[in-house]
Amino acid sequence: MAKSNLIKLSEISTLPPKGFKKDALKDKTAKLVKRLGELQHLLYAEAKHSVLIVLQGMDASGKDGAVRRVFSECTIAGLDLASFKKPTEAEFAHDFLWRVHKCVPEKGTLTIFNRSHYEDILIQRVHGWIDMKRVQTRMAAINAFEDLLKHDNNTLIFKFYMHISSEEQEEQLRQRLEDPAKFWKHKEADWEERKLWDKYMEAYEYAINNSTTPWHICPVDKRWYRDYFIAKTLVEGLEKLDMQLPKPVQTQIKAKKKS
Amino acid sequence: MAKSNLIKLSEISTLPPKGFKKDALKDKTAKLVKRLGELQHLLYAEAKHSVLIVLQGMDASGKDGAVRRVFSECTIAGLDLASFKKPTEAEFAHDFLWRVHKCVPEKGTLTIFNRSHYEDILIQRVHGWIDMKRVQTRMAAINAFEDLLKHDNNTLIFKFYMHISSEEQEEQLRQRLEDPAKFWKHKEADWEERKLWDKYMEAYEYAINNSTTPWHICPVDKRWYRDYFIAKTLVEGLEKLDMQLPKPVQTQIKAKKKS
Repeated sequence: MAKSNLIKLSEISTLPPKGFKKDALKDKTAKLVKRLGELQHLLYAEAKHSVLIVLQGMDASGKDGAVRRVFSECTIAGLDLASFKKPTEAEFAHDFLWRVHKCVPEKGTLTIFNRSHYEDILIQRVHGWIDMKRVQTRMAAINAFEDLLKHDNNTLIFKFYMHISSEEQEEQLRQRLEDPAKFWKHKEADWEERKLWDKYMEAYEYAINNSTTPWHICPVDKRWYRDYFIAKTLVEGLEKLDMQLPKPVQTQIKAKKKS
Repeated sequence: MAKSNLIKLSEISTLPPKGFKKDALKDKTAKLVKRLGELQHLLYAEAKHSVLIVLQGMDASGKDGAVRRVFSECTIAGLDLASFKKPTEAEFAHDFLWRVHKCVPEKGTLTIFNRSHYEDILIQRVHGWIDMKRVQTRMAAINAFEDLLKHDNNTLIFKFYMHISSEEQEEQLRQRLEDPAKFWKHKEADWEERKLWDKYMEAYEYAINNSTTPWHICPVDKRWYRDYFIAKTLVEGLEKLDMQLPKPVQTQIKAKKKS
């Protein structure tokens, strides 16, 4: 999307675009997920690039489910997941990027951030723990940090804003409360945080509109479209790297045959 | 296996036991792998126990393949892989368990060690970098360390010795050299290390026979049996934990309905 046009989240649908049907998409998504597994293997074997995927969104916006489904054909070798929860005391006693920097992917690795450094200009802003001046300073630091990863370690960055409607969030939180299979995810605090919805949207719009590395706005009200959207975006981006397995060296093979 | 009988690796077959056939085992292995995924989800959701899996064996003994296949139905959330390669300078400047301790599983997590703290009484002993007195001191430290994990953090430990024959290793190393799909794994140094085979067997036997936490000797010459053996051992061990999802609380549900 064009960086010059400011994004207004309320004007973007949280539903799949017209023409997309669940049943028709199922096979396409499965193929993309499989191809993503192959590309991750190439990434790992070639070890020239690294990939950082940021999943950022409100509670119950389907981040965990995306991790489970989109990466189901990837292998844990070369795949990392970093989940950023409430900072520890030691983390609070450092700059906000300290704990994040430790988790960035090395060459050959695909790392998923479930929540990210953006929390520090989202929850912290919404609750008034930092002022707008601090938000701006941190936004500049984030842009510089992401540039560093791109330019200094060949890191491909994909950032997804998990775009959920307020109504769908309530439905999802209610399911967590009532469904025995989902109850382990229920947190009373999520219902409290939900009351700050409008402030969160404002904070997200700021982050999205002030990032130099662009965001993908992923409509997540239908989980089947979410999986397709993320898998497609990743596969298309990774195909462009034109990764290749290193080739056998004939002289090495011959030397081994003599011995 | 009984701790009183000393294990002699040369007397244990590296092939599947009689009666096991590849085709007949395929479905059983697939079911075990699927069940392991379900048990990992329970482990994660319940967050009471942690699981440490040690895969230790010679080069090309199928550790990476086991990681890829046995855990293919697990989700990266709550699954960690720590691969222990040549220590860094900082790691060498600490006790040998320092880098290992940082990677042990937290509650709810299943962590795979691809190689492990045992390297420090294997490669280091075989090359004569440490003497037998140091090996014994380290063995005692390893036993105490594994006890700590078991007793202080509810960690279930599964240690697998990947039992490969010398002939099968040569075949596997040759495939890496000649097969374009496997060439990225080829390392000239593996051929050098192979010359120390007998010394390695002696070092492994010492480690296995002096561990207070017992080992599983996994015959790996046939990869399809390896996968079955590991999956079966893990599933049987984890089923014993009788893990349960936390149950919804009716008063919480009612409170939310009023609001």
